[in-house]
Order: sequence, then structure tokens, then C-alpha cells
Amino acid sequence: MRRHDLVVIGAGSGNMVIDDRFSDMDVAVIDDRKFGGTCVNYGCIPSKMLSYTAQIADTVDDAATFDVDSDYHGMRWQQVRDRVFGRTDKVAADGEQGRRDSGFVTVYKGHARFTGARQLQVDVDGDTVELTADRIVVAAGGRPVVPDAVADSGLPFETSDTVMRLDAPPSHLAVLGGGYIAAELAHVFSSAGSRITIIEKSGQLLGGPQDEAVRSVYTELMRSKYDLRCGSELTEITGAAGDLTITLDDGATVHADTLLVATGRRSNSDRLAVEKGGLDTHDDGRIVVDEHCRTTADGVFALGDVSTPIPLKHVANREADVVKHNLLHPDDLHSISHDLVPSAVFTNPQIASIGRTEEDCRDDGLDYRVGLTEFADVAYGWAMQDTSGLCKVLADRDGAILGAHIIGAQAASLIQIFVVAMNFGIKAHELAAKPYWIHPALTEAVENALLDLGK
Amino acid sequence: MRRHDLVVIGAGSGNMVIDDRFSDMDVAVIDDRKFGGTCVNYGCIPSKMLSYTAQIADTVDDAATFDVDSDYHGMRWQQVRDRVFGRTDKVAADGEQGRRDSGFVTVYKGHARFTGARQLQVDVDGDTVELTADRIVVAAGGRPVVPDAVADSGLPFETSDTVMRLDAPPSHLAVLGGGYIAAELAHVFSSAGSRITIIEKSGQLLGGPQDEAVRSVYTELMRSKYDLRCGSELTEITGAAGDLTITLDDGATVHADTLLVATGRRSNSDRLAVEKGGLDTHDDGRIVVDEHCRTTADGVFALGDVSTPIPLKHVANREADVVKHNLLHPDDLHSISHDLVPSAVFTNPQIASIGRTEEDCRDDGLDYRVGLTEFADVAYGWAMQDTSGLCKVLADRDGAILGAHIIGAQAASLIQIFVVAMNFGIKAHELAAKPYWIHPALTEAVENALLDLGK
Repeated sequence: MRRHDLVVIGAGSGNMVIDDRFSDMDVAVIDDRKFGGTCVNYGCIPSKMLSYTAQIADTVDDAATFDVDSDYHGMRWQQVRDRVFGRTDKVAADGEQGRRDSGFVTVYKGHARFTGARQLQVDVDGDTVELTADRIVVAAGGRPVVPDAVADSGLPFETSDTVMRLDAPPSHLAVLGGGYIAAELAHVFSSAGSRITIIEKSGQLLGGPQDEAVRSVYTELMRSKYDLRCGSELTEITGAAGDLTITLDDGATVHADTLLVATGRRSNSDRLAVEKGGLDTHDDGRIVVDEHCRTTADGVFALGDVSTPIPLKHVANREADVVKHNLLHPDDLHSISHDLVPSAVFTNPQIASIGRTEEDCRDDGLDYRVGLTEFADVAYGWAMQDTSGLCKVLADRDGAILGAHIIGAQAASLIQIFVVAMNFGIKAHELAAKPYWIHPALTEAVENALLDLGK
Repeated sequence: MRRHDLVVIGAGSGNMVIDDRFSDMDVAVIDDRKFGGTCVNYGCIPSKMLSYTAQIADTVDDAATFDVDSDYHGMRWQQVRDRVFGRTDKVAADGEQGRRDSGFVTVYKGHARFTGARQLQVDVDGDTVELTADRIVVAAGGRPVVPDAVADSGLPFETSDTVMRLDAPPSHLAVLGGGYIAAELAHVFSSAGSRITIIEKSGQLLGGPQDEAVRSVYTELMRSKYDLRCGSELTEITGAAGDLTITLDDGATVHADTLLVATGRRSNSDRLAVEKGGLDTHDDGRIVVDEHCRTTADGVFALGDVSTPIPLKHVANREADVVKHNLLHPDDLHSISHDLVPSAVFTNPQIASIGRTEEDCRDDGLDYRVGLTEFADVAYGWAMQDTSGLCKVLADRDGAILGAHIIGAQAASLIQIFVVAMNFGIKAHELAAKPYWIHPALTEAVENALLDLGK
């Protein structure tokens, strides 16, 4: 049995734990997929590269609105795809090679399972390697959930892992699910030329973390672009590859050549035999960790989508920083905070959010005020000819900001002003009044939403 | 002699002083130009509407870089111009009509001059009206400076007041000056199809408030698009309307059909006979005011470009708020602060700035550190295929942020994060470490510049 000082399961965020401060240790990284994990290969990076390109295509298609004269012929999908994955595949390959060249990291390209306390078995090229380690970091990520009705149908389907690498945009893409992954990928393929049908069981798109004002604006905007089947569930999928018939619970049918399943993700813990390693899991499969990212097994940490309550890359990055510190300083443990985590949806328009929604405020019985500005009411919104963007802020009677929600251009950047204010306890009226706000920048939508609280 | 309680000279920012709290007074507004002032009619709003449209045109023209297939035929200038000024002219007309309908505001469309202490003479439709007022607000704005060599030539030239309303983009536009107005208008007309030559006496574009890193990036980018004559001064202009020959101090000549003069602006105080009203002026013509926006004449306030040290609309807005308060509450005067005023240049790429440049830090002998991130090094920069954007932050050894400078997409929005941090004394390392920063938003350029300070 090969012994390492430190084994990291997962070459995504887990791989970020390792730096030169570990170079006097015997370290191993195990992954059966590409280095970089979901973010680099199947998630954030390629989807944002595609979404930005989709936005360029949207801009060209809509240029006449700005009296700019052009003929739009479409997105050259294969070139876009190859540009995106040419870049991410190189990042992944360079990441792996960097570890192999490091002199202190062994790379196992294989699937790992626990066989006992800090003991692992890894399948590598048909062989089985037995490992033990003083300390283990579990960062094996998550994966798309596939409903039984789809999985059992025997018919082909795509997930976020596969759909971005298709050879051509579908003619008609049916998207199962209406959350942020569904929304981002629907936008990409719509702009690439696919007809889109979205099948979402709730009444609106982007349920959960988004405020009702944002959900309403977004759902109505998409209703004008897509065939939306909100309030519907898939009951059966029949037909053949490339000629699918999706039957909904209201009896309606959707015909599509391609089905994208985007109904959520789950922790990969069930593929690691974590119980043999002494790691407890939550009912939803996430590995149980404390605030120091320690699992219930001595010497075993976990981070990222395999364990986190908030499966976003900026959270995984911070958990990786905590684990790194705690491995290096076992007598001075750092803690992870999952408070005030902002998020963004990189659709067109963009969406971003921090803190409580208005529904949260109602549910919590808070005495809250609402400040709201439409982008159309600030000068930069005039320049953009914007008709749907808005910035909404929620604050208590003392001005403490409870949450903020933006739909419109630059939302993912504008939200950071609220993120900073909430982290440092800056009251809404102070935030509005003390700093200058550039005229006529889009930040005036934030300023005016804050001022609107006082009206 | 007609007596008013309050007279406001200038229907731009000055007009913002008046609201319903003055409705029990007899108020007058005097202006010989459109309501809304420079911002609405000749400055911020139309230039930003044009610049956004120019950016759309740039995006279409550059779409192939993103594998988006289109034929670009150009900007339909007259439609763009009419869309922009159709909107701003309506704002101006509605603003004037609103005052005329108010029941308490008299509008004089004419030019005002002081004839004594709180005494004015206004030319209205060939008549001369004599006015006196208990209190006067001077907000008569500023105007472009025109060098003698141009003014004395007798040849036609444009300024920011006129160029945006041309019937067609010039074939070849010579721009005298390389500051932010020159840069913004050169961008607009370049995207509209004009060839551009910029004649700037210093060695780089955007001297003064911009950091050397930003100036260098911007100047080199524009060198690839424009004929740049940096380090040159105009000595003579000859030829005829539409066929101008501009001779430079190095003997070189520039042939152009149109000349845009953008060599700076000055206060309009010299047109108001302010000395007769007892108002002192600075050497550069600005009316002298104290921190409460009071001039040296009893009962006379001044605000905006006629008096301010920082002629930006967000500063004039705040000065108008101070004057409004001080008129209503003479026993509880508010003060204006000109500290920490951010600014932006709405070119492509955008530019934004707050606080000290690195040159300022050196000149002040400060012990400073530099944090710098190129947009190309963050994931959203990959998506944008950005090759020139950067975020630079300057901080002292304790982490107090001294200044920040951004060139690249969304700069005018991203800078506000620094504006907020500097106003509330948030240290650079706290700003980097405490809030989450959304991955992969463009705000990661800000985060990484902050983190770079610690390296």
C-alpha cells in the first residue's frame, strides 16, 4: 500500500489547496476527469465564454435598434466551441502537467473510493492502486441529477457536462428545468440558432434564490423568446435519437431533437464509498463538514460541491483557502463563512443577487422597506435603450441593507457594491449620500434604488 | 424693476435647486439656451447615448473575432443623431414647460448680466428687463475654450456644443486636444465612419487626471486607430470650409474637412459682468465660493461649471443639493466636499479613476504599493477576449487605498467599488478578503488587483 502525506481527491477546487508550501510533503491528486474540475471544463468558464459570445450575437442581431446597419448571419458554432474548449482544454492540460512536473505531486488519473480510515482504492488504467494518507482532502465535486423518467427511457440526453461540446446547435432544444444552468444554456443555444422550449415545474423561471421582481421580469422576457412550459413536469420521453417526444403532466407534448437535463446537481459523495472512510453525509448526499471544513473522519477535509451548502465556485475557492490554511496550521484553524454569498446568472440580461429576497423578508417577519429603480430611469439606461432592467434593494428601518437584486447589463458587477456595503455594515442612506456616483454611469441605478428607500 | 425672491441664472444644474419647497416664493430662472444645460443638451447625455451606439457599432464591426458572422454596413448617423436629440430636446422642452406651468417660476429666455448688488439686466426678445432679487444662484455653466489661432482664422470649426448635431459624420475629422471630451467624441465619429487625427500638445492622450498606466494603454490603442499627433501644437489653420489645412509647430500639416476644438472649457462668469454684482473670480474665471457655495456677494450663491473646481455633472448635482439646502435653511448651512470625486471617460475601452495617480503618490513622497491585474488574467476577460484592460490600485503600507484606475469594459461601474471603500475607510486587504467576489464576474479584476498589493 502506497503511503502519501496528503491525498486530494478531485483536481478542481481541491487542486487549488496545493502550492509550494506543501513541497516538502509527498502529495497525490486523484481525478478520473480533466484537471480544473467542473468550473474549467463543464461549468463557469466555458459557459461564460459561450454566454459572452451569445451576447455579441444578440447585439449584432439587435443592432438596427441602435441604427447600426448590418446583416447578421449567425454564430459559427463549431468555431465558437473550438475556441472556448481549445482554451479550457489547454488550461486543464497545463494544470495536470504542472502537477506532474512539480516534483512532489503524484497524479492518479482514476476513480477513488474509500476502503477504510484514510485508506483509498484507485482504479488507474485497469489496475487498482491501494493508498493511505496522513491527511485527505475530498473535493470530488458534484454532477447533474437526471430524473428517472429520462434515465430509464434509454433515449439520449445532454447535461451541462456534454451539451456545450455538441458538434452543432440543436434545431429544437428542449430544456428540462428552469434554474440558472437551464437559463444560461438556453440563452447560449438560442443565440446560436436553436429553438428553445423550457419545461419548468414551478410557475416561473429562476425559482429559489431570485427575488420575485427579477423572476417576473426574466420569465416574461423569456416568454417572448422561448416556448415556456412553466408549471409542467415531464412524465415520459419517447421517440428516437434526434426525434424525441416529451410528454408533460398536463398531457401536452413537446417535439425536439435534443433534450438538455438541467434539473439540479448533487454531491458525488455516493461514488466514493465515504461511509467506509468514516465520513458522514447529509440526506442530500453532501459530506458533513464543520466550519473548518473537517469531515467526521479524523484527518479528512472536504470542500466544494461534494460538501458545501452553496455550490458556487467563489465559495469553493474560499473553502479551498480555508482547507489549505488548516492543513498548514493545524493549531490555528480558520473557519468558512457562508454568509452574504452573492450569485449571478450570466444570461441576457444578466442577473445578480445578494442577501434576502423580499419573500425572505416577509417570511422572516421583518419590518423592511423596498427601493427600486428601473434602468430606463437613469441616463445610461437611456443610452442602452433599456426597457427591462431594474435594481431592487431591501433595507430595514435603520437602513441596514437586507438584500439586493439586479436584472440588466453589468448586474454581476453592480451587485458587488451591495456586497461590499453589507459586509462592512454600511447603511443604505450612508451609501447613497456619502460617495459620489459617476454621472452618467450605470451605477446611478444603484444610487437611485438606495435613494428610493427614503421616499 | 421687477423683484423676485429668488433668481437662478442657468437652467441646467441651477434649475435642480428649485422644487416645491420654494413654491411660496416668487422664483425666476434665466437662460438663453435650452433647459437642462450642458449635460442634457451638449454634454453627458447625448455624448453617452452616442458613445453607447458607437460601442454597438464597434461590436458589430468586430463580431468575427467572436465567430459571429455578419456584414457591417455602418452607423446610420442621421437616425442616430435624431434619436439622441429627439430624446434630449424633449427633456429640455418638458423641463422648460414644467417650470412655466409651475405657478411660481418665471422663465426668462435671455442672457443675464449683473448691474449691481443682486441686480440683473436680462435681454429677452430684444427687450431689456431689469430684475432684483433677495437671493441669486449663479449657475451659468461653462463653455469650450477656442484658441486664438482657430478663432481668428475666420474658418469654421466645431466644438462639443455643435459637433454632435452635424448632418453627417466628417470624412476626416481633426480633433484639437486629447482630453476626455476629445477622446469621447473621436470615438463616436470614428465608429460613425470618420477618419480621425488627434492633435495633442502633450506626449500622450488623457493627461492630467489619468494614471500613467491607463494613459499609456489608451494612447497606444488609439495610435492603432487614429492618426495621433502627440507633442504637437496647431500654429495656423488655412484653406476653406470643408477643405482645411492645419499646420503644426513641427511644420507638418493635416488636411481635414472638419475641425473639432476640444482644448478645454472655462467658466461663463466673464459674460455675466459679475464684478458689478460684487462677485470675485479666480484667475481662471471661476467665481469664488466658500464651502457653502456662497460667493463674495451677500445673498448670491454659485454652483456648477461657473464656479466649481471639478466641472463634472455629479459634482454640480451635489453642489445644487447644498445650495438648495442652504437657501431653505440659512441657519444650518451644508458644505460641499470635493474630495474623492471619481470620473469616467466613456470611450471604447472605458476609463475610470478615483483618488491619486501613481505620479501623485510619487510627487507627495508617499510610501505606496501598486496592485495591478490585467483583464486578460481573469475568467471574464477570457470570455471578452480582452487584451488591453487593466485595474490598478494604489495603497499605503497600512492598506489605505490612495487611488484606483481602470481601463476596460464596465470601468465606470467597477470603479464605484473603490469609491465606496475609500469613502468608508475600508482597507485594501479587508476589501479583498472579507466580501465574496462572484466568479467569474469582471469584478475579479478588482479583487485580484487588491490581492496583488499583498504580493
